[in-house]
Amino acid sequence: MLEDLKQAVLEANLELPKYGLVTFTWGNVSGIDRASGLVVIKPSGVPYESLKRDDMVVVDLEGNVLEGKLKPSSDTPTHLVLYKAFGTIGGIVHTHSPWATSWAQAGRAIPALGTTHADYYYGTIPCTRDMTEDEIKGAYELETGNVITETFRNYDPAMVPGVLVKGHAPFNWGKDPHDAVHNAVVLEEVAKIAFHTLQLQPGIGSMDQVLLDKHFLRKHGKNAYYGQTGNA
Amino acid sequence: MLEDLKQAVLEANLELPKYGLVTFTWGNVSGIDRASGLVVIKPSGVPYESLKRDDMVVVDLEGNVLEGKLKPSSDTPTHLVLYKAFGTIGGIVHTHSPWATSWAQAGRAIPALGTTHADYYYGTIPCTRDMTEDEIKGAYELETGNVITETFRNYDPAMVPGVLVKGHAPFNWGKDPHDAVHNAVVLEEVAKIAFHTLQLQPGIGSMDQVLLDKHFLRKHGKNAYYGQTGNA
Amino acid sequence: MLEDLKQAVLEANLELPKYGLVTFTWGNVSGIDRASGLVVIKPSGVPYESLKRDDMVVVDLEGNVLEGKLKPSSDTPTHLVLYKAFGTIGGIVHTHSPWATSWAQAGRAIPALGTTHADYYYGTIPCTRDMTEDEIKGAYELETGNVITETFRNYDPAMVPGVLVKGHAPFNWGKDPHDAVHNAVVLEEVAKIAFHTLQLQPGIGSMDQVLLDKHFLRKHGKNAYYGQTGNA
Amino acid sequence: MLEDLKQAVLEANLELPKYGLVTFTWGNVSGIDRASGLVVIKPSGVPYESLKRDDMVVVDLEGNVLEGKLKPSSDTPTHLVLYKAFGTIGGIVHTHSPWATSWAQAGRAIPALGTTHADYYYGTIPCTRDMTEDEIKGAYELETGNVITETFRNYDPAMVPGVLVKGHAPFNWGKDPHDAVHNAVVLEEVAKIAFHTLQLQPGIGSMDQVLLDKHFLRKHGKNAYYGQTGNA
Repeated sequence: MLEDLKQAVLEANLELPKYGLVTFTWGNVSGIDRASGLVVIKPSGVPYESLKRDDMVVVDLEGNVLEGKLKPSSDTPTHLVLYKAFGTIGGIVHTHSPWATSWAQAGRAIPALGTTHADYYYGTIPCTRDMTEDEIKGAYELETGNVITETFRNYDPAMVPGVLVKGHAPFNWGKDPHDAVHNAVVLEEVAKIAFHTLQLQPGIGSMDQVLLDKHFLRKHGKNAYYGQTGNA
Repeated sequence: MLEDLKQAVLEANLELPKYGLVTFTWGNVSGIDRASGLVVIKPSGVPYESLKRDDMVVVDLEGNVLEGKLKPSSDTPTHLVLYKAFGTIGGIVHTHSPWATSWAQAGRAIPALGTTHADYYYGTIPCTRDMTEDEIKGAYELETGNVITETFRNYDPAMVPGVLVKGHAPFNWGKDPHDAVHNAVVLEEVAKIAFHTLQLQPGIGSMDQVLLDKHFLRKHGKNAYYGQTGNA
Repeated sequence: MLEDLKQAVLEANLELPKYGLVTFTWGNVSGIDRASGLVVIKPSGVPYESLKRDDMVVVDLEGNVLEGKLKPSSDTPTHLVLYKAFGTIGGIVHTHSPWATSWAQAGRAIPALGTTHADYYYGTIPCTRDMTEDEIKGAYELETGNVITETFRNYDPAMVPGVLVKGHAPFNWGKDPHDAVHNAVVLEEVAKIAFHTLQLQPGIGSMDQVLLDKHFLRKHGKNAYYGQTGNA
Repeated sequence: MLEDLKQAVLEANLELPKYGLVTFTWGNVSGIDRASGLVVIKPSGVPYESLKRDDMVVVDLEGNVLEGKLKPSSDTPTHLVLYKAFGTIGGIVHTHSPWATSWAQAGRAIPALGTTHADYYYGTIPCTRDMTEDEIKGAYELETGNVITETFRNYDPAMVPGVLVKGHAPFNWGKDPHDAVHNAVVLEEVAKIAFHTLQLQPGIGSMDQVLLDKHFLRKHGKNAYYGQTGNA
């Protein structure tokens, strides 16, 4: 069942330690098959070094386990909320990568300060509001998804493929599991560079909008001309 | 004698360079066999690359060497005080890991600023008081243990598995030697992220208590549901 | 066609991940054959791990592709402007190396603060001005080259082999592709050390001019005596 | 001639990239044979990866090359001044390791802020004064040695095995080449931890003298009891 997607989700999970985004099991990647509406996700608390394709868990969008001997990631309800709300995404990743997590703990959105950011994120990477006591004590992981989608009311998830959950850590997404991890690597790099930029220039504002437009649209959309597949 | 524990202590010591927690020989791990009351500990000043199972030293809780050709770690008296005071722990590790040591040198406890911290430490990771001249000039390593247990009068060592010794460096513990090292890795990561969080948000206070409860109890205790062995 | 130069450009590109200067495909190196006026450059968006000599693209100084199945780097027009303006250089590299990029995003030139800097850069490493809306919306990559050469009106590119493009990232150059990458590694190291120097001594000015002269001229020019090939 | 010392100097030089202390050729190690008064030192500007035992250069204390096809390190005169002034040392190393260099560029001595420092350095690691124009324009490398020995008028080089040369970088020494590099690794680690300690506690003063004594003397001198060879 969904063997190709399982393989893709496995490989994307293994990219997390490769790119230094995770300590121990602090991360998980999922992917969705939009045709069937089924999601493949990493099992909870299993070390990456022993992870195998058949350990991947298949769930439906209501969270029912359809296949797999192991329990799915405890963050599964967050993933499912995002798949339902963001119809264009095909993969999601959650990590506690240290630079992005520092911003999340500080409760600060990451402003667009340069072209490295603009190449992937069309503007500020937002940070969610504090969750309420009811949300935390209730269906916490599902509510984590809700507070993300609430934050994205005024954002296009295809143009800003990631978020900081306040007091917690980042979530990223992409057109497939590999692309989601790619965006998580970029977020970590951007978070690090933005941190040091602010130390060098404490009062700095967001970058020039014209330059932001130029770089984002050089890589995305119908007039993209970066890489071998751009149209321009 | 205690061959399994020696092997476990050896392996836990070898995890220190693997996780980047030590420079040269700046660290040591021990484990206790509660049935016999005997402790296995790394020999003093031996490089990790040449460390073998038979180099491990067996001591009783009074510090008498019962087996081993080498001298035990000079920090052995600190370990023994902690094993006597904290009846639930099975392993102890001491390192000079750089981020945690920076906080220890600054004499600052690490506040809980996010869920990465809350997943492992139920609140602030405390820093000991200054040791007195008598304590330093006397049985220094034993007194180091005493100042830790004094600091933990109002803490549960099972819920806060580590401490910063002021002007010195961290000690961590766990249910066995491997678990102690695991908690030391987490401490180092948490110390790094907290440092950067404070630079981004200098006046930040501790995280929301409800969120702290949620994350700690999601992984610990009878209602834990993270990982494959949770009960919930 | 230009097989040796292709090989040199390939090898210089592969040095970028080796020295930790790039994430993903965020960098490109080119080299010029001054006799023919032809430039060899990395193709756009191709991962380093799969890069081969025959992937290199040959262009003339007007940007016409003379050989190569792939599209040249989107930054090619910037390289070409620099080759035309800086007649003594033989290789160019662009990266988003994180420390140098932090200074570029902050819009701050890197002052010469010590001999590490002085060994390679004869004084401040400048940062370009903001680009205008017309420049960004127009021939952006070409205008990036123009704003660099404008910045270098009062600099000798042989004595300051690199620049920070404001809000973007560094460009470096050298007598050949390998040398350009060498200078990029130095820039990243110098940017990191200067950052921490400023945190330790916020009001610090540039280093003593006599010491700067001594170190730069110890390694460069007719009286150089560092290394095996110095004349003194 | 001095084959064992050449081998020791070679191995100590190769430890520099192993411990991350050098970029390119930015470092050199020497050793002295006190019986003959001859010094073995790395050749100038040769990459570590191609360094061989027979590349080592033998010089006398006046700097005359007695053996070796290559030019000795341009820093040789500094080494020779130190060997003459510090009669108890057997090896010297110079690097531009980034944390120590940041302190050197800032012109700040590194205060003893914790036991990691105290285990190896008996108090503040000093920073030299500015060199004069005459010193820089004259026999610069020799004068660098002189400004170090001047700084050590009130220091015992056996108790503080390193120095920061202002605006430049560190020099370290030890009882042999390997020990000198060991002290350089410690300096880099101590410089990093002290940097972060100061950011967490800006006004912090030096550590308690009693604790400093305890830790230094636990590892050094006739009452040392750390490691397998201590006497206590």
